[in-house]
Amino acid sequence: MNSTAIISVSGGLDSTTLLHYIVGQGEKPIAVMFDYGQRHDKECGCAVEQCSKLEVPWMFIQLDEYQDIASRMSALVNPLIAVPTVQEAMGDPQPVSYVPNRNMLFLSYAVAMAESLGIRNVYYGAQKHDTYGYWDTTPEFVAALNGVYRLNRKNPIQILAPFVNKSKADEILLGIELGIDYANTWSCYQGGDKACGVCATCAERLKGFMDAGIPDPLEYAFLPSGYKQRFGV
Amino acid sequence: MNSTAIISVSGGLDSTTLLHYIVGQGEKPIAVMFDYGQRHDKECGCAVEQCSKLEVPWMFIQLDEYQDIASRMSALVNPLIAVPTVQEAMGDPQPVSYVPNRNMLFLSYAVAMAESLGIRNVYYGAQKHDTYGYWDTTPEFVAALNGVYRLNRKNPIQILAPFVNKSKADEILLGIELGIDYANTWSCYQGGDKACGVCATCAERLKGFMDAGIPDPLEYAFLPSGYKQRFGV
Repeated sequence: MNSTAIISVSGGLDSTTLLHYIVGQGEKPIAVMFDYGQRHDKECGCAVEQCSKLEVPWMFIQLDEYQDIASRMSALVNPLIAVPTVQEAMGDPQPVSYVPNRNMLFLSYAVAMAESLGIRNVYYGAQKHDTYGYWDTTPEFVAALNGVYRLNRKNPIQILAPFVNKSKADEILLGIELGIDYANTWSCYQGGDKACGVCATCAERLKGFMDAGIPDPLEYAFLPSGYKQRFGV
Repeated sequence: MNSTAIISVSGGLDSTTLLHYIVGQGEKPIAVMFDYGQRHDKECGCAVEQCSKLEVPWMFIQLDEYQDIASRMSALVNPLIAVPTVQEAMGDPQPVSYVPNRNMLFLSYAVAMAESLGIRNVYYGAQKHDTYGYWDTTPEFVAALNGVYRLNRKNPIQILAPFVNKSKADEILLGIELGIDYANTWSCYQGGDKACGVCATCAERLKGFMDAGIPDPLEYAFLPSGYKQRFGV
């Protein structure tokens, strides 16, 4: 099987939906996933399960030194920094859940893989709801980065982010159509047994499911009252 | 001591000269160096010695998975791919000594360090003579990459490449003025005891010293006749 694309996957909702979507579009991707000491390393297990299900080969990259770098400023890596709630995150152009230059680093690895294999397409699961707090998930970021890679003389890699203007609800509706089991994805920034239901990413995910009119199959330690009313749970 | 800059160093002529130059300009840098299985890992020892001499702290990053990625296409990592001579390299817009997306990856780590430490300046030792074969050493690359990092809302890192339009001879003349011992730098793509004197980077280095009118203090296994005549060795 000749691979046609590289995709960076986390096991979260966005990249899982993107993975299924591109496979449905006929791409034969190789996935790349990263352990950078994230509290929510559970997501890696989900990524592996999603890849296995689709028979997508993956490469796992262990970023020990990057963990040391990131833990100085990011709540996603350093347990001494509290994970923000959605209210805290929303008021901040770069919340403490930002991981320094992480997306650029992940994409640099993905592009290296693509170049090495003579592949042109690299997929990136950026989506609309992250753009409030993360400069490196915006359409402007993707466009500027493509401006860099276009300079490559032999293989000008393209970073493709087909969901960059899509909402979580749009993704969920698409994913349900594609048969994705969202119980096998992980978003919560905390590393608990159940998703916390309170952190910024849980709140956004639950809102996405509410907007899509579909209950989230994932188990939560806490559910907001609006969500409970909406689905009678 | 408050650090003011991050610099990616290899132990080669360009980044060593840049390191001494920015220290002379009053920067208090932290250096970052990488082991990606390069044949010429001798360069790392030179980088450490140069940092120690200047009392510059450094971080060492081991890139095992990247070695696996790069070895598929790059002569600098894979001993089964022959290192190109300068004639072979010059006729190629991207010779086999190109390492896939390496400079982008190194800079991604350096920028992550800068963000994590609240530092704005990241130094990159790109110079004029590499631009023939390496898209990621050109002024256009540096400008486009700065266009990406400018989008960061809290700390728009600047990639500074003050030698991007300088020749090797310019660097050497500057370095001699700064008191650099170039015997303690390593450029050769081969991993031998002595520099080979034949590979593309040896040829460029020797030409740089010839143009500067100064003999290279490094030991070579072979010296081109023009060089021997020039310096009577």
